Amino acid sequence: MVYDLIVIGSGPAGYVGAIKAGQRGLKTLVIDKKYVGGMCLNWGCIPTKSLLESAKMLHKVKSAAEFGIGGIDPADLSFDWQQALKRTQQIVSKLSRGIEFLWKKNGVEFLKAEAKILSPTQVEADNRILETKNILIATGSRPAQRKDFPDALSLEDLYGLETLPEKPLLAGRGANLVELAQFFQMIGKQPIILADDLPLMPSLDAYLESYIQKQLKKNKIPVIPTIEAVIKDNYLVYNDKEHNFDMVINVSFRSAILPESVPVLELKNGFVKTDRTHQSNIPGIYAAGDVNGKSYLAHVASAQALEVIDTIMNVELPQDERQYPLNIYSEPEMAQIGFTEEQIKAQNLDYKINQYPLSANGKALTEGSADGFIRILFETKYNEVLGVQIVAANATDLISEAGILMELEGTTYDLARTIHAHPTVAEVYMDAGAIEE
Amino acid sequence: MVYDLIVIGSGPAGYVGAIKAGQRGLKTLVIDKKYVGGMCLNWGCIPTKSLLESAKMLHKVKSAAEFGIGGIDPADLSFDWQQALKRTQQIVSKLSRGIEFLWKKNGVEFLKAEAKILSPTQVEADNRILETKNILIATGSRPAQRKDFPDALSLEDLYGLETLPEKPLLAGRGANLVELAQFFQMIGKQPIILADDLPLMPSLDAYLESYIQKQLKKNKIPVIPTIEAVIKDNYLVYNDKEHNFDMVINVSFRSAILPESVPVLELKNGFVKTDRTHQSNIPGIYAAGDVNGKSYLAHVASAQALEVIDTIMNVELPQDERQYPLNIYSEPEMAQIGFTEEQIKAQNLDYKINQYPLSANGKALTEGSADGFIRILFETKYNEVLGVQIVAANATDLISEAGILMELEGTTYDLARTIHAHPTVAEVYMDAGAIEE
Repeated sequence: MVYDLIVIGSGPAGYVGAIKAGQRGLKTLVIDKKYVGGMCLNWGCIPTKSLLESAKMLHKVKSAAEFGIGGIDPADLSFDWQQALKRTQQIVSKLSRGIEFLWKKNGVEFLKAEAKILSPTQVEADNRILETKNILIATGSRPAQRKDFPDALSLEDLYGLETLPEKPLLAGRGANLVELAQFFQMIGKQPIILADDLPLMPSLDAYLESYIQKQLKKNKIPVIPTIEAVIKDNYLVYNDKEHNFDMVINVSFRSAILPESVPVLELKNGFVKTDRTHQSNIPGIYAAGDVNGKSYLAHVASAQALEVIDTIMNVELPQDERQYPLNIYSEPEMAQIGFTEEQIKAQNLDYKINQYPLSANGKALTEGSADGFIRILFETKYNEVLGVQIVAANATDLISEAGILMELEGTTYDLARTIHAHPTVAEVYMDAGAIEE
Repeated sequence: MVYDLIVIGSGPAGYVGAIKAGQRGLKTLVIDKKYVGGMCLNWGCIPTKSLLESAKMLHKVKSAAEFGIGGIDPADLSFDWQQALKRTQQIVSKLSRGIEFLWKKNGVEFLKAEAKILSPTQVEADNRILETKNILIATGSRPAQRKDFPDALSLEDLYGLETLPEKPLLAGRGANLVELAQFFQMIGKQPIILADDLPLMPSLDAYLESYIQKQLKKNKIPVIPTIEAVIKDNYLVYNDKEHNFDMVINVSFRSAILPESVPVLELKNGFVKTDRTHQSNIPGIYAAGDVNGKSYLAHVASAQALEVIDTIMNVELPQDERQYPLNIYSEPEMAQIGFTEEQIKAQNLDYKINQYPLSANGKALTEGSADGFIRILFETKYNEVLGVQIVAANATDLISEAGILMELEGTTYDLARTIHAHPTVAEVYMDAGAIEE
């Protein structure tokens, strides 16, 4: 038997691509050496958000008295790591079964094994040689091993711990780093950030980066540049101050997980080099998601995989890659889509920014989370929206309105004219859209 | 001095219209006999949502142990009505000051007085006769007085209570009724709904109505049709069963609050009859919001008032009135925009419905609120979206994406193609948009 497509890896690129391939009638096999759902489902996006929900609930409960809830003594509150983990694992299992259901429904086969690419039409796995017309590499990435802390725990290791560290040192960069630091802070630990890069999140607008840095300061989470820190046994010295830690967690910039391959795949900075259709240097071998190094976001991985299926089905892709949101599940949440102010400036566009504070939004006030704002960046000829940035308790969901607006090339006038329900936090889109100088 | 515009009433029609009028350079005066912000701000939208936030927090805290939060005994939890009220009043004050600030900034004057319309160009208030070029009536509505319970409390009266009733009888119809019933249920009271109409919410899609009826059943809130109930002193009899109550709250269908007027305003079912521009039978006298009986939603009132200002400024209005969302702050929340299935059927359109459950959404699962769904109703020629309905913990914010989509005449293809961040609840738009038979 010859498959139309063998997918190696079952994360957001692999499982989404496989479902779509099945729907399109492609005879499809997914091979993964570990868990269905990959990193995102098993120790990435989903578990971290589930644990953050627990931590945010603990955080919010502390202000219950203000809302008129009696019977809670903040001093009595505690965090049960094993229970939070158990709840998380139940969610992961449910979603994992959901993926297997959708594969089955769409005729997709699954093989738990290590895969080796023998040729553009042959994959070896489970001591068999499998024939295929196309291969999609969706093996993802992992944090690069650290030279300063070669034995640092990974996020996956963290979930195996009986008890949590009191003073974790989180070394790396990016949204995960910030989320993890605030997670530990909200459950009463004393995390330290060892920042390999500053800004912490290089693709974020400088305005948001500056906001989150202030937030971390308020949270009393030290942010120490790796380059300036002197590391001793179980403490590090920065600005003449000693910072103790009892565990190191590796949240470093990522390196690709490359499958074994006989055909030599061309790399770029260690990631599989691909063209606009996400095809590698070897015709018939595609790479989507983290492994191609274009982005490290789950939703972009899925979108790329769908584009691979389109390409295999001879559907032509649009010239440009799409706008996609960047979400940070911090406290409060932050989200961004489109161009940053720096990117707009670099293009010499005439632009304006309409900013509207959450403190003027009735619904945000009723929710007790009026800390934040919306910023709408638009060019000044037609007022087309070029970028949107939101800081709000539910920014990660709110950003979706900007996504569809930008997909349809909407303007600030469209936002101002669209009737938004009252009272909602989403009204800030309308209010910001309507700002007149 | 002659005003360009006198606005009578300062709710969502009055205050929003006045701000825009000021921005457009119209010399504007707002007259209100009571509070700045009208019913919506002072005892409607905002206070009810603030109190619901408190009740929902109490409700959520009961499952804190499942999230891994220790130190809370559900049996110890209590609801402090006075504290919840105090928090609410602080929010109301802040928003009220915000409106006054925006008025001042835009040169709008305010007079606290009872207004009487003497002619299309004269208003009497505070023992003075004020000259104006235009008048906007934005006096709102109140629940109609009940024949069965003439002394029933209003929502406004409720906020003056020292302690809450144990078994409130909520008599009337609409979203407020459902929200209020669930509020009492969540804080541990035993509310009874006396339903003047069934469906409870006539403008809601039958699918959502049926969902909320089931929800009320789960909440053990009896829903008794007014027409079939026999009322005794402090109990009512329905289906041979006695239901005690210790207070009656009037949430009846609304009647207009009409200002005194020498020119005879033509009415329709008791509300000021207006044309597409919201002008009454008397040229120069407009009516926006509840008082014209076209809608009883705050955001529609604001939108109408903006259209009045456009009309005064000689900006032509689009032919059709706009789509607007309908939000119910129930537990879970419900939201709807565009046509209901019944309305689509009545137009003999070819349509389909894509429905996607929240139980398959990772973010909803992590939040512990995967009860709900999205339904997208679209015509089958171009797949243009005709209506969207959502049940979800944050449905009232999620619906805003559908608002901008429909304003820009988007399709299910647009939803499926737009990259939605993972993991977010808003992904259900993309997932539902991508459903293929």
